[in-house]
Amino acid sequence: MGRITARRRVARYTVGERISVRDDHLAVEEPLEIRIGGSPLTMTMRTPGDDVELATGFLLSEGIVTSAEQVRAAMHCAPDGEENTYNVLDVTLDPVRAAVAADLTRAFTTTSACGLCGKSSIDAIRATSAFDLSNDDTVVDAEFIATLPVRLRGGQSAFEKTGGLHAAALFDAATGELLVLREDVGRHNAVDKVIGWALSAGRVARSGLVLMVSGRASFELAQKAFMAGIPLLAAVSAPSSLAVEMAEDVGLGLVGFVRDNRMVVYAGAERVTNESAAQQRAVKARTA
Amino acid sequence: MGRITARRRVARYTVGERISVRDDHLAVEEPLEIRIGGSPLTMTMRTPGDDVELATGFLLSEGIVTSAEQVRAAMHCAPDGEENTYNVLDVTLDPVRAAVAADLTRAFTTTSACGLCGKSSIDAIRATSAFDLSNDDTVVDAEFIATLPVRLRGGQSAFEKTGGLHAAALFDAATGELLVLREDVGRHNAVDKVIGWALSAGRVARSGLVLMVSGRASFELAQKAFMAGIPLLAAVSAPSSLAVEMAEDVGLGLVGFVRDNRMVVYAGAERVTNESAAQQRAVKARTA
Repeated sequence: MGRITARRRVARYTVGERISVRDDHLAVEEPLEIRIGGSPLTMTMRTPGDDVELATGFLLSEGIVTSAEQVRAAMHCAPDGEENTYNVLDVTLDPVRAAVAADLTRAFTTTSACGLCGKSSIDAIRATSAFDLSNDDTVVDAEFIATLPVRLRGGQSAFEKTGGLHAAALFDAATGELLVLREDVGRHNAVDKVIGWALSAGRVARSGLVLMVSGRASFELAQKAFMAGIPLLAAVSAPSSLAVEMAEDVGLGLVGFVRDNRMVVYAGAERVTNESAAQQRAVKARTA
Repeated sequence: MGRITARRRVARYTVGERISVRDDHLAVEEPLEIRIGGSPLTMTMRTPGDDVELATGFLLSEGIVTSAEQVRAAMHCAPDGEENTYNVLDVTLDPVRAAVAADLTRAFTTTSACGLCGKSSIDAIRATSAFDLSNDDTVVDAEFIATLPVRLRGGQSAFEKTGGLHAAALFDAATGELLVLREDVGRHNAVDKVIGWALSAGRVARSGLVLMVSGRASFELAQKAFMAGIPLLAAVSAPSSLAVEMAEDVGLGLVGFVRDNRMVVYAGAERVTNESAAQQRAVKARTA
């Protein structure tokens, strides 16, 4: 795991002053190829570490697997006579899911009607998710959500060193617990690592979960939350139009710009209450 | 082009206060499928607008085209009886380049030795670039680079509204001119749009160009700069380890954390001088 940050000699410039040369920490980025039964499925540029969770999280968010039992094995592969770079991960799935993966690989290269639009993307994702958020009655207090950015930042040890990593974390709103936090140069990888962890820990499709991300909420991140059955996605920064449309369509709560004691709820406002604040006001009014 | 931002009704929460409902602007995100001669090549989630430049910039950064002449035509396609969503773009290449694209599509699905590592990724890119930065003698003053984040931000009209867009811009260090600026929900798309513009404007592989990006500098962005023959990449935030290694290997100048009058030069320090600052000091010393 000593590969999350790297040291490097850099030159610090200040306009009007001397250049100073010193060591700096960088966020490590390396390619990971994910294979299914020996066949390449995808390649991602990621920060090494938690590669198995990254792969299973990716498979979950692509609809290739829906439960931990479908993943039979996962190992970094090194062919005879070649060095193991730990940058190729071979996943063995049960036969049905392996066939799904093979179909998807073909679909990617032959694809699809010309009527490509946001709506058809949302429909495709809705069709492949194993979970239905409309049955999930999660409601979270705004006051709790407001605490998450600081807790996320507090757990970002590699970011502190490098300034170069995205983070994602899963919180249990019922207990207030931070369940898992992952950092990566790619925001989608950070989320895949979190939901891959959730898959193996039996935490997918559980009521009361909040996925908090350090940056913006794109369609892809909202898709990952939905595919993992997570009812609420919160982001430090802005969501995109399609992330909001999708969240609205599938019953995902989507909160953006969580800063200090404020936030903007873009979809699923019924999932966020200001209940404790209302109680405070009531108490204040009575005691005034 | 009214599709860069979208309006939406949102709920603003402040802990301890009433919820206010109002209209907000979102950055638009929609899928774009890029086809070559009718065959799907790739799909990206992007902000609509400048799709042709996005596609040609992508083709340039993948080594599929190296000059504007190789692109014969590009048009949004709508098959008989289907609505044109303007989300599918079909590019016609000259026959040689079309064959390169077909080879790459096959390579993507059948791929590669198990020895996947950062080094092999760098070698692959170096092998496919039409340009050699080691012959480029661009040197830029740190004082000029220090002005770029503010100029970048000043041009981000859609960011101002939404807070949800990355930006990339190309500057000519010799004249100081801002040549082009593009915004997109995806940072790689913003850069593709810029280098696609450069391709059509005859500005690739020109000495004195600086590519400035609003976020972090990943391997992918450094690759795009190199493939377009741009000698200097500057980022508001941190670069990754592999971006720095690659920049060092191919002679790309890489500057990060450009903030106020400071910056960190991670690779190609010979491309950044503090010359005018040194002159200022000399003048001060003489007049003191």
